[in-house]
Amino acid sequence: MALEITKELIENVEDLILNKKDVALNDFFAETHHADIAEVLEELSFDDAIYIIRLLDSETTADVLMDVDEDVREKIFERLSSKEIAEEIEELDTDDAADVIAELPEERKQEVIQKIEDKEHAKEIVELLRYDEDTAGGLMAKELVKVNENWNVLTCVKEMRLQAEEVTRVHSIYVVDSDGKLKGRLSLKDLLMASTRSKIADVYIPKVDFVNVHDKAEDIANVMMKYDLEAIPVVDELGVLVGRITIDDIVDVIKEEADKDYQLAAGITQDVEAGDSIIQLTKARLPWLFLGLIGGIGAFLIMGEFEHTFKKHAFLFFFTPLIAAMAGNVGVQSSAIIVQGLANDDVKGSIKNRLVKEMLLALLNGVVLAIFLFLFVLAYERDFMKALAISVSLIVVIVVAGLIGTFIPLFLDKRGIDPAIATGPFITTSNDIFGILIYFLIAQLILGV
Amino acid sequence: MALEITKELIENVEDLILNKKDVALNDFFAETHHADIAEVLEELSFDDAIYIIRLLDSETTADVLMDVDEDVREKIFERLSSKEIAEEIEELDTDDAADVIAELPEERKQEVIQKIEDKEHAKEIVELLRYDEDTAGGLMAKELVKVNENWNVLTCVKEMRLQAEEVTRVHSIYVVDSDGKLKGRLSLKDLLMASTRSKIADVYIPKVDFVNVHDKAEDIANVMMKYDLEAIPVVDELGVLVGRITIDDIVDVIKEEADKDYQLAAGITQDVEAGDSIIQLTKARLPWLFLGLIGGIGAFLIMGEFEHTFKKHAFLFFFTPLIAAMAGNVGVQSSAIIVQGLANDDVKGSIKNRLVKEMLLALLNGVVLAIFLFLFVLAYERDFMKALAISVSLIVVIVVAGLIGTFIPLFLDKRGIDPAIATGPFITTSNDIFGILIYFLIAQLILGV
Repeated sequence: MALEITKELIENVEDLILNKKDVALNDFFAETHHADIAEVLEELSFDDAIYIIRLLDSETTADVLMDVDEDVREKIFERLSSKEIAEEIEELDTDDAADVIAELPEERKQEVIQKIEDKEHAKEIVELLRYDEDTAGGLMAKELVKVNENWNVLTCVKEMRLQAEEVTRVHSIYVVDSDGKLKGRLSLKDLLMASTRSKIADVYIPKVDFVNVHDKAEDIANVMMKYDLEAIPVVDELGVLVGRITIDDIVDVIKEEADKDYQLAAGITQDVEAGDSIIQLTKARLPWLFLGLIGGIGAFLIMGEFEHTFKKHAFLFFFTPLIAAMAGNVGVQSSAIIVQGLANDDVKGSIKNRLVKEMLLALLNGVVLAIFLFLFVLAYERDFMKALAISVSLIVVIVVAGLIGTFIPLFLDKRGIDPAIATGPFITTSNDIFGILIYFLIAQLILGV
Repeated sequence: MALEITKELIENVEDLILNKKDVALNDFFAETHHADIAEVLEELSFDDAIYIIRLLDSETTADVLMDVDEDVREKIFERLSSKEIAEEIEELDTDDAADVIAELPEERKQEVIQKIEDKEHAKEIVELLRYDEDTAGGLMAKELVKVNENWNVLTCVKEMRLQAEEVTRVHSIYVVDSDGKLKGRLSLKDLLMASTRSKIADVYIPKVDFVNVHDKAEDIANVMMKYDLEAIPVVDELGVLVGRITIDDIVDVIKEEADKDYQLAAGITQDVEAGDSIIQLTKARLPWLFLGLIGGIGAFLIMGEFEHTFKKHAFLFFFTPLIAAMAGNVGVQSSAIIVQGLANDDVKGSIKNRLVKEMLLALLNGVVLAIFLFLFVLAYERDFMKALAISVSLIVVIVVAGLIGTFIPLFLDKRGIDPAIATGPFITTSNDIFGILIYFLIAQLILGV
């Protein structure tokens, strides 16, 4: 399992740096995975981290830099020359290289790209920079193994050996025609089993899943999960093979998407972590709290309107937290189911059918809860009409909250807006207000005051 | 991209079934990916689905059955004989086979296992059934390619060709000693480049990541994501290679874990989808709503206690939804950050440090919001003391809510309980009650009534 980054380990490294024991440091890090080196760097002082980056060879540090947090990377790059950054980039696959360059300030970008010695690599990176980062083009790497359908297996194996040196992991061998159009694939296993004399055109599998360079990351993730793919080729508008996406990048997409939805549901914008600074965390949290505050002031104003009406029934006010909480809970539940269903692409049928189903569901839940509440109020206050007013309100509030919770994410999705923003504080706040308003109106109607 | 399951397509299939056009059906499904066939089956009537399962060969239907929803699979299996199920199972990899068998009723399990003709396969499945499904043992498959360190490359390639026939995707070739202990690995790429005369002991890479058969699924997912692995070997207590886990299973773990946490945060237990029945959805949602109801009744009782004290200041009651909402929002935010941090294994430092940080964060947010609320109340009610009472309460409530939201998931995690249950309704409900109580106590103190 993973290396444990202990306090002793960090102190040990700091000691070696202080005493400039470069050989010992090199030996230690040579045995350490780049993902672990990245964690060590994040624990070190900034100067120590730079020391290590300059000490180790760029083949290692390029991978390490990919693994550190974006803000740490940014700071390190500020201290490195464009030449030094270009050297790191030479060691990266094109997709990672493009991601790193995309983070640089505009003028730095140009400088670094010009300093890349391998002009072919630079050209490919520039091509990748053109694509939106949330599309196939933004995720794909140019590194892949492709063979021409007109070759025979012998030529193919020779060519592949050359190409494979560039490619970290060979998943599939893609077969193209003379125009570079994707025709099919060869699996390494097939190749392992095939005789060297066969012709590629005779042995390749013409059925191959692929995505278009402009397809969305989330859709690609769903396709790769559905078909259990570990890599998928990317073609342009003409069907020409332009890159491939591997499952490790998709795992990151799935994880980030899930984390983002979870945070939005909890009322946290931006991508923050437990370890981030108080200022960063405040930026991510305060806007939602402010929304809640505005909602609370709205509730205050509504209740104030009913003050004179309910002078005799002050206890009605004591049920507002209950009503507001139920409206909020139901709203979050129903919106969460829709948001998740949309993300997993399994919300089928029309909006109308969804709303009818949610209405029945909310009605069922509402009636069960209302019966319980009715009995409680009847026992506690010994007043049938009051118990009735509160229970009927609860049912109506739950149904309305469920409908709002279902409708808003569906509506946002239709409009092309991320429905995940609908869950959490947004729904709870609006449902608080609607819930309280509905509650007092119904109570007024039933109690006739 | 994925096949579109249109209404016409389904009607077409239903038509073919009605007219018993078996050849046309076979032709159509031969061209269709098993994941798509699974979706078609889920749209068909139950009898039609059974018809298709019996029509297609078991090599296809085994994969299809893995892809349909668990409850559909259960129903289909009820209609198939143990012999028929065993035939499907023969076609599956050991990990999938064990998962499917684990779902069967106890007496059916034995019957099916005994009907599996390949006794070696049956033995491996029985071995896998011993492990908890959330551990490496529960995730791993027995299918892998392993070679002995004492072989030469030629023997190795011969052996591998035999073994590779059993394995869907070859990721790595694992090297073991004569006792079966894991020594290292060979990548297919290395093999592609290596000369046939070398000895395995001279060419293998002795550094290999692995997990223990009892390691937890979530930890394995973190390791595989961190090190970008596509497969990881599993060893037993003696270091003997017993299986391997592939990234596609880990993708499912990540996705399920994220979905579950998201649902818990929204107050939904059990694994439900938008398409599930109203009864299933009610079972998943009602318990949390009931919790909210109990909380609301608690809030009602607390407010009732203060009725006489605040007779003159009825408007104080009108701020309870605001206080409750803020307490709930802050609690959910802070617990969500901790839950996510725990899942991603990046919550470092002691509980005390966490609480101090959250206190400062909540204080900062609280003060900003309280100033705004203070100015509003002052402008609206023109009463300094009232404005002060409400604003000070807000700050205290936010700080306490933040501390509760941070502490509970950390506490649950230390106790070995899934901290994700702490987010959502659980936190909002308890924070509602604490918040309201604190609010009235502080208001009483400041207003001196």
